[in-house]
Amino acid sequence: MSDPDLTRFSINQMTVKQLSMPELVAACGDLGVTNVGLWREPVRTYGVERAAKLVRDAGLTVTTLCRGGFLTALDPVERAAALADNRRAVDEAAALGTGVLVLVSGGLPAGSKDLHGARERIADALSVLGPYAEDHGVKLAIEPLHPMYAADRCVVSTLTQALDLAERFPAHQVGVTVDTYHIWWDDRAPAQIARAGAAGRIHTFQLADWTTPLPEGVLNGRGQIGDGAIDMREWLGHVTKAGYTGAIEVELFNDALWARDGREVLAETAARFVAHTAD
Amino acid sequence: MSDPDLTRFSINQMTVKQLSMPELVAACGDLGVTNVGLWREPVRTYGVERAAKLVRDAGLTVTTLCRGGFLTALDPVERAAALADNRRAVDEAAALGTGVLVLVSGGLPAGSKDLHGARERIADALSVLGPYAEDHGVKLAIEPLHPMYAADRCVVSTLTQALDLAERFPAHQVGVTVDTYHIWWDDRAPAQIARAGAAGRIHTFQLADWTTPLPEGVLNGRGQIGDGAIDMREWLGHVTKAGYTGAIEVELFNDALWARDGREVLAETAARFVAHTAD
Repeated sequence: MSDPDLTRFSINQMTVKQLSMPELVAACGDLGVTNVGLWREPVRTYGVERAAKLVRDAGLTVTTLCRGGFLTALDPVERAAALADNRRAVDEAAALGTGVLVLVSGGLPAGSKDLHGARERIADALSVLGPYAEDHGVKLAIEPLHPMYAADRCVVSTLTQALDLAERFPAHQVGVTVDTYHIWWDDRAPAQIARAGAAGRIHTFQLADWTTPLPEGVLNGRGQIGDGAIDMREWLGHVTKAGYTGAIEVELFNDALWARDGREVLAETAARFVAHTAD
Repeated sequence: MSDPDLTRFSINQMTVKQLSMPELVAACGDLGVTNVGLWREPVRTYGVERAAKLVRDAGLTVTTLCRGGFLTALDPVERAAALADNRRAVDEAAALGTGVLVLVSGGLPAGSKDLHGARERIADALSVLGPYAEDHGVKLAIEPLHPMYAADRCVVSTLTQALDLAERFPAHQVGVTVDTYHIWWDDRAPAQIARAGAAGRIHTFQLADWTTPLPEGVLNGRGQIGDGAIDMREWLGHVTKAGYTGAIEVELFNDALWARDGREVLAETAARFVAHTAD
Protein backbone atom coordinates (compact mmCIF):
# COMPACT_ATOMS: atom_id res chain seq x y z
CA MET A 1 0.00 0.00 0.00
CA SER A 2 1.42 3.32 -1.04
CA ASP A 3 -1.24 5.39 0.72
CA PRO A 4 -2.94 4.36 3.95
CA ASP A 5 -5.92 6.58 3.05
CA LEU A 6 -6.64 4.20 0.17
CA THR A 7 -6.86 1.11 2.39
CA ARG A 8 -10.66 1.00 2.19
CA PHE A 9 -10.96 2.46 -1.32
CA SER A 10 -12.35 0.14 -3.98
CA ILE A 11 -12.61 1.09 -7.61
CA ASN A 12 -15.77 -0.18 -9.19
CA GLN A 13 -14.96 -1.42 -12.66
CA MET A 14 -17.81 0.56 -14.22
CA THR A 15 -16.13 3.84 -13.25
CA VAL A 16 -13.28 3.07 -15.65
CA LYS A 17 -14.99 0.71 -18.05
CA GLN A 18 -12.72 1.93 -20.86
CA LEU A 19 -9.94 -0.14 -19.21
CA SER A 20 -9.64 -3.82 -20.07
CA MET A 21 -9.36 -6.29 -17.20
CA PRO A 22 -5.52 -6.42 -17.41
CA GLU A 23 -5.30 -2.63 -17.77
CA LEU A 24 -7.53 -2.17 -14.73
CA VAL A 25 -5.44 -4.57 -12.65
CA ALA A 26 -2.18 -2.95 -13.75
CA ALA A 27 -3.46 0.56 -13.02
CA CYS A 28 -4.57 -0.54 -9.54
CA GLY A 29 -1.06 -1.90 -8.92
CA ASP A 30 0.58 1.32 -10.04
CA LEU A 31 -1.68 3.48 -7.85
CA GLY A 32 -1.67 1.31 -4.74
CA VAL A 33 -5.34 0.43 -5.11
CA THR A 34 -5.98 -2.97 -3.53
CA ASN A 35 -9.76 -3.39 -3.97
CA VAL A 36 -11.95 -3.66 -7.02
CA GLY A 37 -15.67 -4.11 -7.59
CA LEU A 38 -16.26 -6.11 -10.76
CA TRP A 39 -19.09 -6.35 -13.28
CA ARG A 40 -20.33 -9.56 -14.79
CA GLU A 41 -20.22 -8.54 -18.46
CA PRO A 42 -16.51 -7.59 -18.71
CA VAL A 43 -15.60 -10.48 -16.44
CA ARG A 44 -17.45 -12.96 -18.63
CA THR A 45 -15.96 -11.45 -21.76
CA TYR A 46 -12.49 -11.95 -20.31
CA GLY A 47 -13.39 -15.31 -18.80
CA VAL A 48 -14.49 -15.83 -15.21
CA GLU A 49 -11.68 -18.21 -14.15
CA ARG A 50 -9.12 -16.16 -16.02
CA ALA A 51 -10.33 -12.97 -14.36
CA ALA A 52 -10.27 -14.67 -10.98
CA LYS A 53 -6.64 -15.70 -11.51
CA LEU A 54 -5.70 -12.23 -12.78
CA VAL A 55 -6.97 -10.40 -9.71
CA ARG A 56 -5.75 -13.12 -7.31
CA ASP A 57 -2.23 -13.06 -8.74
CA ALA A 58 -2.20 -9.27 -8.44
CA GLY A 59 -3.21 -9.46 -4.80
CA LEU A 60 -6.45 -7.56 -5.41
CA THR A 61 -9.51 -8.06 -3.24
CA VAL A 62 -12.81 -8.26 -5.13
CA THR A 63 -15.20 -6.31 -2.93
CA THR A 64 -18.42 -6.97 -4.90
CA LEU A 65 -19.74 -8.39 -8.10
CA CYS A 66 -22.32 -6.28 -9.93
CA ARG A 67 -24.92 -7.44 -10.54
CA GLY A 68 -27.72 -9.86 -10.18
CA GLY A 69 -31.37 -9.07 -9.86
CA PHE A 70 -34.06 -8.15 -12.41
CA LEU A 71 -36.47 -10.38 -10.57
CA THR A 72 -39.80 -8.72 -11.32
CA ALA A 73 -40.99 -10.53 -14.44
CA LEU A 74 -44.55 -11.88 -14.44
CA ASP A 75 -44.00 -14.43 -17.18
CA PRO A 76 -43.03 -17.83 -15.68
CA VAL A 77 -40.47 -18.53 -18.39
CA GLU A 78 -38.84 -15.15 -17.85
CA ARG A 79 -38.89 -15.69 -14.09
CA ALA A 80 -37.19 -19.06 -14.40
CA ALA A 81 -34.56 -17.56 -16.69
CA ALA A 82 -33.92 -14.75 -14.21
CA LEU A 83 -33.48 -17.20 -11.35
CA ALA A 84 -31.07 -19.30 -13.41
CA ASP A 85 -29.10 -16.21 -14.36
CA ASN A 86 -28.88 -15.14 -10.73
CA ARG A 87 -27.59 -18.57 -9.72
CA ARG A 88 -24.87 -18.13 -12.36
CA ALA A 89 -24.10 -14.71 -10.90
CA VAL A 90 -23.67 -16.31 -7.47
CA ASP A 91 -21.37 -18.92 -9.00
CA GLU A 92 -19.33 -16.18 -10.65
CA ALA A 93 -19.08 -14.21 -7.41
CA ALA A 94 -17.83 -17.31 -5.62
CA ALA A 95 -15.31 -18.01 -8.39
CA LEU A 96 -14.01 -14.44 -8.15
CA GLY A 97 -13.61 -14.78 -4.41
CA THR A 98 -16.01 -12.02 -3.45
CA GLY A 99 -18.58 -12.47 -0.73
CA VAL A 100 -21.07 -9.91 -2.07
CA LEU A 101 -23.38 -9.96 -5.08
CA VAL A 102 -25.17 -6.64 -5.68
CA LEU A 103 -28.81 -6.95 -6.78
CA VAL A 104 -30.68 -4.41 -8.88
CA SER A 105 -34.19 -5.63 -8.46
CA GLY A 106 -35.81 -4.78 -11.79
CA GLY A 107 -38.59 -2.45 -12.92
CA LEU A 108 -42.25 -2.86 -13.73
CA PRO A 109 -43.11 -5.42 -16.41
CA ALA A 110 -44.43 -3.83 -19.60
CA GLY A 111 -47.90 -2.44 -19.05
CA SER A 112 -47.93 -3.13 -15.31
CA LYS A 113 -48.62 -0.40 -12.75
CA ASP A 114 -48.28 -2.69 -9.74
CA LEU A 115 -45.21 -1.69 -7.71
CA HIS A 116 -46.31 -3.70 -4.68
CA GLY A 117 -46.73 -6.88 -6.68
CA ALA A 118 -43.32 -6.43 -8.29
CA ARG A 119 -41.73 -6.02 -4.86
CA GLU A 120 -43.40 -9.21 -3.66
CA ARG A 121 -42.00 -11.14 -6.62
CA ILE A 122 -38.53 -10.01 -5.58
CA ALA A 123 -39.16 -11.51 -2.14
CA ASP A 124 -40.29 -14.74 -3.77
CA ALA A 125 -37.07 -14.90 -5.76
CA LEU A 126 -34.92 -14.14 -2.71
CA SER A 127 -36.42 -17.10 -0.89
CA VAL A 128 -34.80 -19.27 -3.56
CA LEU A 129 -31.62 -17.28 -4.14
CA GLY A 130 -30.76 -16.55 -0.51
CA PRO A 131 -30.09 -20.17 0.46
CA TYR A 132 -28.31 -20.79 -2.84
CA ALA A 133 -26.01 -17.83 -2.21
CA GLU A 134 -25.36 -18.95 1.37
CA ASP A 135 -24.31 -22.37 0.11
CA HIS A 136 -21.71 -20.61 -2.04
CA GLY A 137 -20.45 -18.21 0.63
CA VAL A 138 -22.02 -15.20 -1.05
CA LYS A 139 -24.27 -12.54 0.48
CA LEU A 140 -26.93 -10.79 -1.59
CA ALA A 141 -27.00 -6.98 -1.34
CA ILE A 142 -30.31 -5.44 -2.43
CA GLU A 143 -29.54 -2.02 -3.86
CA PRO A 144 -32.29 0.56 -3.56
CA LEU A 145 -32.03 2.69 -6.67
CA HIS A 146 -33.07 6.34 -6.82
CA PRO A 147 -36.87 6.69 -7.22
CA MET A 148 -36.33 8.02 -10.75
CA TYR A 149 -35.62 4.39 -11.74
CA ALA A 150 -38.73 2.90 -10.13
CA ALA A 151 -40.58 2.20 -13.38
CA ASP A 152 -37.89 0.85 -15.65
CA ARG A 153 -35.04 -0.43 -13.53
CA CYS A 154 -35.66 -0.96 -9.85
CA VAL A 155 -38.93 -0.95 -7.93
CA VAL A 156 -36.96 -0.84 -4.66
CA SER A 157 -36.47 2.90 -4.18
CA THR A 158 -35.48 3.42 -0.55
CA LEU A 159 -33.33 1.79 2.09
CA THR A 160 -36.52 1.30 4.06
CA GLN A 161 -38.03 -0.79 1.27
CA ALA A 162 -34.78 -2.70 0.76
CA LEU A 163 -34.57 -3.54 4.47
CA ASP A 164 -38.24 -4.49 4.62
CA LEU A 165 -37.39 -7.05 1.95
CA ALA A 166 -34.03 -8.12 3.35
CA GLU A 167 -35.34 -8.68 6.86
CA ARG A 168 -37.52 -11.53 5.69
CA PHE A 169 -34.27 -13.48 5.34
CA PRO A 170 -31.16 -14.09 7.48
CA ALA A 171 -28.58 -11.27 7.36
CA HIS A 172 -25.88 -13.60 6.07
CA GLN A 173 -28.11 -14.31 3.08
CA VAL A 174 -29.64 -10.91 2.27
CA GLY A 175 -28.59 -7.38 3.14
CA VAL A 176 -28.40 -4.05 1.36
CA THR A 177 -26.15 -1.86 -0.74
CA VAL A 178 -25.83 1.66 0.61
CA ASP A 179 -25.03 3.97 -2.31
CA THR A 180 -24.94 7.71 -1.71
CA TYR A 181 -26.22 8.51 -5.20
CA HIS A 182 -29.52 6.76 -4.60
CA ILE A 183 -30.32 7.80 -1.04
CA TRP A 184 -28.75 11.20 -0.44
CA TRP A 185 -32.07 13.07 -0.72
CA ASP A 186 -33.81 10.85 1.86
CA ASP A 187 -33.93 12.25 5.38
CA ARG A 188 -34.95 8.82 6.63
CA ALA A 189 -31.86 7.12 5.22
CA PRO A 190 -29.55 7.78 8.20
CA ALA A 191 -31.94 5.96 10.52
CA GLN A 192 -32.21 3.14 8.00
CA ILE A 193 -28.44 2.85 7.82
CA ALA A 194 -28.45 2.46 11.61
CA ARG A 195 -31.17 -0.19 11.27
CA ALA A 196 -29.14 -2.02 8.62
CA GLY A 197 -25.91 -1.82 10.60
CA ALA A 198 -27.48 -3.10 13.80
CA ALA A 199 -28.63 -6.19 11.90
CA GLY A 200 -25.33 -6.73 10.10
CA ARG A 201 -26.98 -6.02 6.77
CA ILE A 202 -24.73 -3.34 5.25
CA HIS A 203 -23.07 -5.61 2.72
CA THR A 204 -21.42 -2.84 0.70
CA PHE A 205 -21.08 0.93 0.72
CA GLN A 206 -20.72 2.84 -2.55
CA LEU A 207 -20.10 6.48 -3.41
CA ALA A 208 -21.16 8.63 -6.33
CA ASP A 209 -21.98 12.33 -6.38
CA TRP A 210 -25.19 14.01 -7.56
CA THR A 211 -24.69 16.50 -10.37
CA THR A 212 -27.21 18.31 -12.56
CA PRO A 213 -28.57 18.63 -15.16
CA LEU A 214 -29.32 14.93 -15.48
CA PRO A 215 -28.67 13.48 -18.93
CA GLU A 216 -31.37 11.94 -21.12
CA GLY A 217 -32.30 8.55 -19.70
CA VAL A 218 -30.71 9.57 -16.36
CA LEU A 219 -28.29 6.63 -16.36
CA ASN A 220 -24.88 8.08 -17.07
CA GLY A 221 -24.77 11.30 -15.09
CA ARG A 222 -23.28 10.15 -11.80
CA GLY A 223 -20.86 12.79 -10.67
CA GLN A 224 -17.20 12.42 -9.70
CA ILE A 225 -16.77 12.59 -5.92
CA GLY A 226 -16.76 16.24 -4.85
CA ASP A 227 -18.42 17.60 -7.98
CA GLY A 228 -21.98 17.52 -6.68
CA ALA A 229 -24.46 17.98 -3.87
CA ILE A 230 -23.57 15.04 -1.61
CA ASP A 231 -21.55 15.39 1.58
CA MET A 232 -19.51 12.17 1.45
CA ARG A 233 -18.09 12.54 4.96
CA GLU A 234 -21.59 12.81 6.35
CA TRP A 235 -22.65 9.50 4.78
CA LEU A 236 -19.38 7.80 5.69
CA GLY A 237 -20.09 8.96 9.22
CA HIS A 238 -23.52 7.32 9.14
CA VAL A 239 -22.23 3.93 8.00
CA THR A 240 -19.27 4.12 10.39
CA LYS A 241 -21.58 4.85 13.30
CA ALA A 242 -23.64 1.86 12.17
CA GLY A 243 -20.57 -0.34 12.52
CA TYR A 244 -19.56 -0.69 8.89
CA THR A 245 -15.80 -1.19 8.50
CA GLY A 246 -15.65 -2.67 4.99
CA ALA A 247 -14.52 -1.35 1.65
CA ILE A 248 -15.88 1.84 0.11
CA GLU A 249 -16.49 1.53 -3.61
CA VAL A 250 -16.65 4.43 -6.00
CA GLU A 251 -19.06 3.52 -8.77
CA LEU A 252 -19.65 6.20 -11.42
CA PHE A 253 -21.64 5.91 -14.63
CA ASN A 254 -20.51 8.98 -16.49
CA ASP A 255 -20.10 9.52 -20.21
CA ALA A 256 -17.61 12.34 -19.70
CA LEU A 257 -15.37 10.16 -17.49
CA TRP A 258 -15.63 7.26 -19.93
CA ALA A 259 -14.42 9.50 -22.75
CA ARG A 260 -11.16 10.19 -20.89
CA ASP A 261 -8.03 8.10 -20.32
CA GLY A 262 -9.02 5.38 -17.88
CA ARG A 263 -5.79 5.45 -15.85
CA GLU A 264 -6.13 9.19 -15.43
CA VAL A 265 -9.75 8.77 -14.27
CA LEU A 266 -8.72 6.09 -11.78
CA ALA A 267 -5.97 8.31 -10.36
CA GLU A 268 -8.38 11.24 -10.11
CA THR A 269 -11.04 9.07 -8.47
CA ALA A 270 -8.56 7.79 -5.86
CA ALA A 271 -7.43 11.35 -5.14
CA ARG A 272 -11.02 12.57 -4.81
CA PHE A 273 -11.81 9.66 -2.52
CA VAL A 274 -8.99 10.65 -0.20
CA ALA A 275 -9.88 14.34 -0.32
CA HIS A 276 -13.53 13.70 0.57
CA THR A 277 -13.24 10.86 3.09
CA ALA A 278 -9.93 11.26 4.96
CA ASP A 279 -10.17 12.52 8.54
CA MET B 1 -71.47 21.39 -17.99
CA SER B 2 -71.59 19.12 -20.97
CA ASP B 3 -70.09 16.12 -19.16
CA PRO B 4 -70.66 15.35 -15.48
CA ASP B 5 -67.42 13.35 -15.43
CA LEU B 6 -65.56 16.61 -16.01
CA THR B 7 -67.06 18.34 -12.97
CA ARG B 8 -63.87 17.98 -10.93
CA PHE B 9 -61.45 18.20 -13.86
CA SER B 10 -59.17 21.22 -13.93
CA ILE B 11 -56.79 21.93 -16.75
CA ASN B 12 -53.50 23.29 -15.51
CA GLN B 13 -52.42 26.04 -17.86
CA MET B 14 -48.92 24.57 -18.24
CA THR B 15 -50.37 21.49 -19.94
CA VAL B 16 -51.46 23.64 -22.88
CA LYS B 17 -49.05 26.54 -22.57
CA GLN B 18 -49.17 27.03 -26.33
CA LEU B 19 -52.65 28.53 -25.85
CA SER B 20 -52.96 32.22 -25.01
CA MET B 21 -55.15 33.17 -22.05
CA PRO B 22 -58.17 33.94 -24.28
CA GLU B 23 -57.60 30.77 -26.32
CA LEU B 24 -57.44 28.70 -23.14
CA VAL B 25 -60.64 30.22 -21.80
CA ALA B 26 -62.44 29.75 -25.11
CA ALA B 27 -61.30 26.13 -25.41
CA CYS B 28 -62.50 25.42 -21.89
CA GLY B 29 -65.90 26.85 -22.80
CA ASP B 30 -66.15 24.73 -25.92
CA LEU B 31 -65.23 21.52 -24.07
CA GLY B 32 -67.28 22.07 -20.94
CA VAL B 33 -64.21 22.48 -18.76
CA THR B 34 -65.06 24.71 -15.81
CA ASN B 35 -61.82 24.73 -13.81
CA VAL B 36 -58.35 26.00 -14.60
CA GLY B 37 -55.05 26.11 -12.72
CA LEU B 38 -53.10 29.17 -13.75
CA TRP B 39 -49.40 30.10 -13.82
CA ARG B 40 -48.01 33.43 -12.78
CA GLU B 41 -45.91 34.16 -15.85
CA PRO B 42 -48.66 33.98 -18.52
CA VAL B 43 -51.11 35.66 -16.17
CA ARG B 44 -48.73 38.56 -15.58
CA THR B 45 -47.97 38.83 -19.27
CA TYR B 46 -51.70 39.11 -19.97
CA GLY B 47 -52.28 41.30 -16.93
CA VAL B 48 -53.48 40.02 -13.55
CA GLU B 49 -56.68 42.06 -13.36
CA ARG B 50 -57.43 41.44 -17.01
CA ALA B 51 -56.90 37.68 -16.57
CA ALA B 52 -59.10 37.71 -13.47
CA LYS B 53 -61.90 39.40 -15.42
CA LEU B 54 -61.46 37.03 -18.37
CA VAL B 55 -61.89 33.87 -16.30
CA ARG B 56 -64.60 35.39 -14.11
CA ASP B 57 -66.66 36.50 -17.11
CA ALA B 58 -66.31 33.00 -18.58
CA GLY B 59 -67.53 31.41 -15.38
CA LEU B 60 -64.30 29.52 -14.84
CA THR B 61 -63.08 28.56 -11.38
CA VAL B 62 -59.37 29.10 -10.79
CA THR B 63 -58.35 26.06 -8.75
CA THR B 64 -54.74 27.04 -8.05
CA LEU B 65 -52.08 29.55 -8.92
CA CYS B 66 -48.65 28.09 -9.68
CA ARG B 67 -46.35 28.99 -8.16
CA GLY B 68 -44.61 30.60 -5.28
CA GLY B 69 -41.69 29.24 -3.36
CA PHE B 70 -37.95 29.15 -4.05
CA LEU B 71 -37.34 29.96 -0.42
CA THR B 72 -33.95 28.34 0.19
CA ALA B 73 -31.51 31.15 -0.53
CA LEU B 74 -28.81 31.82 2.05
CA ASP B 75 -28.09 35.37 0.95
CA PRO B 76 -30.21 37.88 2.96
CA VAL B 77 -30.88 40.06 -0.08
CA GLU B 78 -32.03 37.05 -2.10
CA ARG B 79 -34.16 35.87 0.81
CA ALA B 80 -35.86 39.24 1.12
CA ALA B 81 -36.51 39.29 -2.63
CA ALA B 82 -38.01 35.80 -2.48
CA LEU B 83 -40.35 36.78 0.36
CA ALA B 84 -41.43 39.90 -1.52
CA ASP B 85 -42.08 37.87 -4.64
CA ASN B 86 -44.13 35.35 -2.69
CA ARG B 87 -46.23 38.13 -1.19
CA ARG B 88 -46.92 39.28 -4.75
CA ALA B 89 -47.87 35.72 -5.66
CA VAL B 90 -50.38 35.69 -2.80
CA ASP B 91 -51.76 39.03 -4.01
CA GLU B 92 -52.12 37.62 -7.52
CA ALA B 93 -53.85 34.48 -6.25
CA ALA B 94 -56.31 36.61 -4.33
CA ALA B 95 -56.92 38.81 -7.37
CA LEU B 96 -57.61 35.73 -9.51
CA GLY B 97 -60.08 34.45 -6.94
CA THR B 98 -58.24 31.23 -6.14
CA GLY B 99 -57.72 30.07 -2.60
CA VAL B 100 -54.58 28.02 -3.26
CA LEU B 101 -51.02 29.06 -4.08
CA VAL B 102 -48.74 26.13 -4.96
CA LEU B 103 -45.21 26.35 -3.56
CA VAL B 104 -42.13 24.76 -5.10
CA SER B 105 -39.67 25.13 -2.30
CA GLY B 106 -36.37 25.62 -4.12
CA GLY B 107 -33.13 23.65 -4.36
CA LEU B 108 -29.75 23.85 -2.71
CA PRO B 109 -27.93 27.17 -2.98
CA ALA B 110 -24.82 26.98 -5.19
CA GLY B 111 -22.09 25.00 -3.45
CA SER B 112 -24.28 23.95 -0.52
CA LYS B 113 -24.75 20.29 0.47
CA ASP B 114 -27.04 21.06 3.41
CA LEU B 115 -30.53 19.74 2.68
CA HIS B 116 -31.62 20.01 6.30
CA GLY B 117 -30.61 23.66 6.53
CA ALA B 118 -32.43 24.44 3.29
CA ARG B 119 -35.60 22.81 4.61
CA GLU B 120 -35.37 24.87 7.80
CA ARG B 121 -35.12 28.08 5.78
CA ILE B 122 -38.38 27.13 4.08
CA ALA B 123 -40.00 26.85 7.51
CA ASP B 124 -38.65 30.28 8.42
CA ALA B 125 -40.18 31.75 5.28
CA LEU B 126 -43.53 30.05 5.88
CA SER B 127 -43.75 31.64 9.30
CA VAL B 128 -43.90 34.98 7.48
CA LEU B 129 -45.87 33.96 4.41
CA GLY B 130 -48.50 31.81 6.16
CA PRO B 131 -50.12 34.70 8.06
CA TYR B 132 -49.81 36.96 5.01
CA ALA B 133 -51.61 34.39 2.88
CA GLU B 134 -54.31 33.91 5.52
CA ASP B 135 -54.96 37.65 5.56
CA HIS B 136 -55.62 37.42 1.81
CA GLY B 137 -57.80 34.30 1.93
CA VAL B 138 -55.14 32.13 0.29
CA LYS B 139 -53.78 28.77 1.45
CA LEU B 140 -50.19 27.74 0.71
CA ALA B 141 -49.73 24.24 -0.73
CA ILE B 142 -46.19 22.88 -0.33
CA GLU B 143 -45.52 20.59 -3.27
CA PRO B 144 -43.08 17.77 -2.66
CA LEU B 145 -41.22 17.29 -5.92
CA HIS B 146 -39.77 13.98 -7.05
CA PRO B 147 -36.39 13.28 -5.37
CA MET B 148 -34.67 13.74 -8.72
CA TYR B 149 -35.23 17.49 -8.24
CA ALA B 150 -33.80 17.66 -4.70
CA ALA B 151 -30.57 19.44 -5.65
CA ASP B 152 -31.69 22.03 -8.13
CA ARG B 153 -35.40 22.65 -7.70
CA CYS B 154 -37.03 21.40 -4.52
CA VAL B 155 -35.43 20.08 -1.34
CA VAL B 156 -38.84 18.84 -0.20
CA SER B 157 -38.97 15.37 -1.78
CA THR B 158 -41.74 13.45 -0.02
CA LEU B 159 -45.21 14.05 1.36
CA THR B 160 -43.77 13.15 4.76
CA GLN B 161 -41.28 16.01 4.56
CA ALA B 162 -43.93 18.39 3.21
CA LEU B 163 -46.29 17.55 6.06
CA ASP B 164 -43.52 17.79 8.64
CA LEU B 165 -43.10 21.36 7.42
CA ALA B 166 -46.78 22.16 6.99
CA GLU B 167 -47.76 20.92 10.43
CA ARG B 168 -45.73 23.65 12.09
CA PHE B 169 -48.48 26.00 10.88
CA PRO B 170 -52.29 26.06 10.91
CA ALA B 171 -53.90 23.98 8.14
CA HIS B 172 -55.74 27.01 6.76
CA GLN B 173 -52.35 28.64 6.21
CA VAL B 174 -50.16 25.77 5.00
CA GLY B 175 -50.99 22.40 3.47
CA VAL B 176 -49.67 20.27 0.64
CA THR B 177 -50.01 19.59 -3.05
CA VAL B 178 -50.52 15.90 -3.82
CA ASP B 179 -49.20 15.26 -7.36
CA THR B 180 -49.06 11.68 -8.61
CA TYR B 181 -45.94 12.32 -10.70
CA HIS B 182 -43.85 13.14 -7.67
CA ILE B 183 -45.05 10.53 -5.18
CA TRP B 184 -46.18 7.47 -7.13
CA TRP B 185 -43.03 5.46 -6.27
CA ASP B 186 -43.38 6.04 -2.52
CA ASP B 187 -45.05 3.23 -0.60
CA ARG B 188 -45.42 5.58 2.36
CA ALA B 189 -47.38 8.15 0.38
CA PRO B 190 -50.85 6.60 0.90
CA ALA B 191 -50.46 6.84 4.67
CA GLN B 192 -49.22 10.40 4.28
CA ILE B 193 -52.25 11.29 2.17
CA ALA B 194 -54.40 9.98 5.01
CA ARG B 195 -52.37 12.08 7.45
CA ALA B 196 -52.83 15.15 5.26
CA GLY B 197 -56.52 14.56 4.76
CA ALA B 198 -57.23 14.06 8.46
CA ALA B 199 -55.67 17.47 9.13
CA GLY B 200 -57.44 19.23 6.25
CA ARG B 201 -54.14 19.82 4.52
CA ILE B 202 -54.74 18.45 1.01
CA HIS B 203 -55.00 21.83 -0.69
CA THR B 204 -54.81 20.49 -4.25
CA PHE B 205 -54.55 17.19 -6.10
CA GLN B 206 -52.75 16.99 -9.43
CA LEU B 207 -52.26 14.24 -11.98
CA ALA B 208 -49.43 13.44 -14.38
CA ASP B 209 -48.20 10.08 -15.58
CA TRP B 210 -44.68 8.65 -15.35
CA THR B 211 -43.16 7.77 -18.71
CA THR B 212 -39.62 6.75 -19.62
CA PRO B 213 -37.01 7.42 -20.83
CA LEU B 214 -36.76 10.72 -19.01
CA PRO B 215 -35.56 13.63 -21.15
CA GLU B 216 -32.36 15.56 -20.50
CA GLY B 217 -32.89 17.81 -17.50
CA VAL B 218 -35.91 15.65 -16.49
CA LEU B 219 -38.29 18.62 -16.55
CA ASN B 220 -40.47 18.15 -19.59
CA GLY B 221 -41.21 14.44 -19.69
CA ARG B 222 -44.43 14.21 -17.70
CA GLY B 223 -46.65 11.74 -19.43
CA GLN B 224 -50.22 12.16 -20.63
CA ILE B 225 -52.68 10.42 -18.30
CA GLY B 226 -52.74 6.72 -19.15
CA ASP B 227 -49.44 6.64 -21.02
CA GLY B 228 -47.28 5.61 -18.09
CA ALA B 229 -46.76 3.60 -14.92
CA ILE B 230 -49.17 5.35 -12.55
CA ASP B 231 -52.56 3.93 -11.58
CA MET B 232 -54.63 7.13 -11.41
CA ARG B 233 -57.69 5.46 -9.90
CA GLU B 234 -55.58 4.11 -7.06
CA TRP B 235 -54.31 7.58 -6.13
CA LEU B 236 -57.73 9.16 -6.57
CA GLY B 237 -58.95 6.45 -4.21
CA HIS B 238 -56.36 7.45 -1.63
CA VAL B 239 -57.26 11.15 -1.67
CA THR B 240 -60.98 10.36 -1.72
CA LYS B 241 -60.62 8.10 1.31
CA ALA B 242 -58.73 10.95 2.97
CA GLY B 243 -61.75 13.19 2.47
CA TYR B 244 -60.61 15.25 -0.50
CA THR B 245 -63.51 16.41 -2.64
CA GLY B 246 -61.88 19.28 -4.55
CA ALA B 247 -60.77 19.76 -8.12
CA ILE B 248 -58.33 17.41 -9.83
CA GLU B 249 -55.80 19.24 -11.96
CA VAL B 250 -53.92 17.69 -14.82
CA GLU B 251 -50.52 19.36 -15.01
CA LEU B 252 -48.18 18.08 -17.72
CA PHE B 253 -44.79 19.45 -18.73
CA ASN B 254 -44.23 17.73 -22.03
CA ASP B 255 -42.40 18.95 -25.10
CA ALA B 256 -44.32 16.60 -27.38
CA LEU B 257 -47.68 17.87 -26.13
CA TRP B 258 -46.54 21.47 -26.41
CA ALA B 259 -45.64 20.92 -30.06
CA ARG B 260 -49.23 19.97 -30.90
CA ASP B 261 -52.40 22.00 -31.32
CA GLY B 262 -53.33 23.18 -27.84
CA ARG B 263 -57.10 22.72 -28.27
CA GLU B 264 -56.52 19.17 -29.41
CA VAL B 265 -54.28 18.50 -26.40
CA LEU B 266 -56.91 19.95 -24.06
CA ALA B 267 -59.61 17.73 -25.58
CA GLU B 268 -57.36 14.68 -25.33
CA THR B 269 -56.44 15.49 -21.74
CA ALA B 270 -60.09 15.83 -20.74
CA ALA B 271 -60.91 12.52 -22.42
CA ARG B 272 -58.00 10.76 -20.74
CA PHE B 273 -59.05 12.23 -17.41
CA VAL B 274 -62.52 10.74 -17.78
CA ALA B 275 -61.17 7.40 -18.99
CA HIS B 276 -58.80 7.04 -16.05
CA THR B 277 -60.85 8.49 -13.19
CA ALA B 278 -64.53 7.79 -13.89
CA ASP B 279 -66.16 5.05 -11.80
